[in-house]
Amino acid sequence: MRRNRTTVRVRWSDADAAGIGYYPRFFDWFVDGTLELLRGWQASYAELFHGEGLGLPTIEAHCRFLAPVRYDDALEIETVVAEVRSRAFRLEHTLWRGGERVAEGYEVRGWQRIDPASPQAVALSPIPADVAAWLRGDAVPGD
Amino acid sequence: MRRNRTTVRVRWSDADAAGIGYYPRFFDWFVDGTLELLRGWQASYAELFHGEGLGLPTIEAHCRFLAPVRYDDALEIETVVAEVRSRAFRLEHTLWRGGERVAEGYEVRGWQRIDPASPQAVALSPIPADVAAWLRGDAVPGD
Amino acid sequence: MRRNRTTVRVRWSDADAAGIGYYPRFFDWFVDGTLELLRGWQASYAELFHGEGLGLPTIEAHCRFLAPVRYDDALEIETVVAEVRSRAFRLEHTLWRGGERVAEGYEVRGWQRIDPASPQAVALSPIPADVAAWLRGDAVPGD
Amino acid sequence: MRRNRTTVRVRWSDADAAGIGYYPRFFDWFVDGTLELLRGWQASYAELFHGEGLGLPTIEAHCRFLAPVRYDDALEIETVVAEVRSRAFRLEHTLWRGGERVAEGYEVRGWQRIDPASPQAVALSPIPADVAAWLRGDAVPGD
Repeated sequence: MRRNRTTVRVRWSDADAAGIGYYPRFFDWFVDGTLELLRGWQASYAELFHGEGLGLPTIEAHCRFLAPVRYDDALEIETVVAEVRSRAFRLEHTLWRGGERVAEGYEVRGWQRIDPASPQAVALSPIPADVAAWLRGDAVPGD
Repeated sequence: MRRNRTTVRVRWSDADAAGIGYYPRFFDWFVDGTLELLRGWQASYAELFHGEGLGLPTIEAHCRFLAPVRYDDALEIETVVAEVRSRAFRLEHTLWRGGERVAEGYEVRGWQRIDPASPQAVALSPIPADVAAWLRGDAVPGD
Repeated sequence: MRRNRTTVRVRWSDADAAGIGYYPRFFDWFVDGTLELLRGWQASYAELFHGEGLGLPTIEAHCRFLAPVRYDDALEIETVVAEVRSRAFRLEHTLWRGGERVAEGYEVRGWQRIDPASPQAVALSPIPADVAAWLRGDAVPGD
Repeated sequence: MRRNRTTVRVRWSDADAAGIGYYPRFFDWFVDGTLELLRGWQASYAELFHGEGLGLPTIEAHCRFLAPVRYDDALEIETVVAEVRSRAFRLEHTLWRGGERVAEGYEVRGWQRIDPASPQAVALSPIPADVAAWLRGDAVPGD
């Protein structure tokens, strides 16, 4: 299956008044992991969204927080495509600080062809065969 | 079990470039729901945190997104204590827009007595009996 | 000139690791103040933006921070239209905590008729006479 | 005077429903620029804050927005110490996208020795001579 690693640094604003990473920010890092993984397929989500009229609405998200993170911690986000269904796919994310696993979770993302007449509607479409193959990590032309 | 309802409005900054609510923001609303529920027990989480030296680190969080939300939508957050364990408790959150359920999920929060010498450490402590009773919604003196 | 008062509460995530309000959040409150003031003219910025094809790009913003704010502080945002130019207007914001002034600043906002063929371009248009009159606080029909 | 350049990428969550960078996020980038500049003096603001008991409360901030930014734009933050006063200093920030200036502004930051008994109070202290010299860009031992 397709996988990616990207790095982030905990910003000053990611910590809360308790001095540790505010938990909703971990999902921002999951989003970073997902969009960075997709770069392997498209130059950026911007092209996907504005150019191709595609969206990837999040259907479900989960995180287990294993250790607090602090300002300036260097984290690595490991993202793996775990399952490709007909209209949605599942990404598993692990956050590492050096060799320590600090969080793990997943997102389920739908495949949505945006209707220009109604850009905010969310109706899922079938994932095209070539995209599904790419997500599964199959060798694809130009890969 | 203890339950609470509070309202929020989707802010301009809660929507992403797709014009719909950015999913990590839903967890900010879960946090709002949790802290508002706790107001029934303490005046505010600030008193709990700064005054009593208590923290409620999030151990796990999950959300299922059922419908997109948009700027200015009025949402109601329904929060219910679903389970009280010895050192942690589980809160279930439902987001409503009028009669429509737009998201549902949960948080598992630990009980942490903060060590002033090491305020950022996360080690869980037993939930005191009176707090556990309050969370369960038992009648407690002064309630 | 048109003026408005609205209230916000400092959220847990608005404080940084130092336990005080993170300064970029003050500008989120200025945005709240601006959008609430505009409600007097339109039901919401959503209608303005999606319905009328109008945007109000921020050209300049300034804030002087007079006192730290903390989680759960109740703040009042006082917003006044200070100047109406041909293609832009200036809003002055004051943040109050009870009778204490905790911040003051301004935004300069442009008037932009969004070109559907190029929705992200920012080119300013003349503010229509009836809108300029409303912003100045002149009595307008139906006000 | 001391100066620094650091890079950021516009994240998906930095854009608003209009598809362009939400203006309060520019101040987050100013904060990034300031903290990265300070790395030349200390390993991180975390050491400064937690280790040395120092804070740098923002007294004033200003930004002029010259061009909209979009998701995935690579920006360079140029930060220059513009003035060192007795208890505060002023940092000027310019945001570049390639050779294009997209925003410019400043922060005035105070120097605060945090009182452990009252960590959230904001009272300014004199900037020590060696720090003032470093901020001014004078050659200092070990630099």
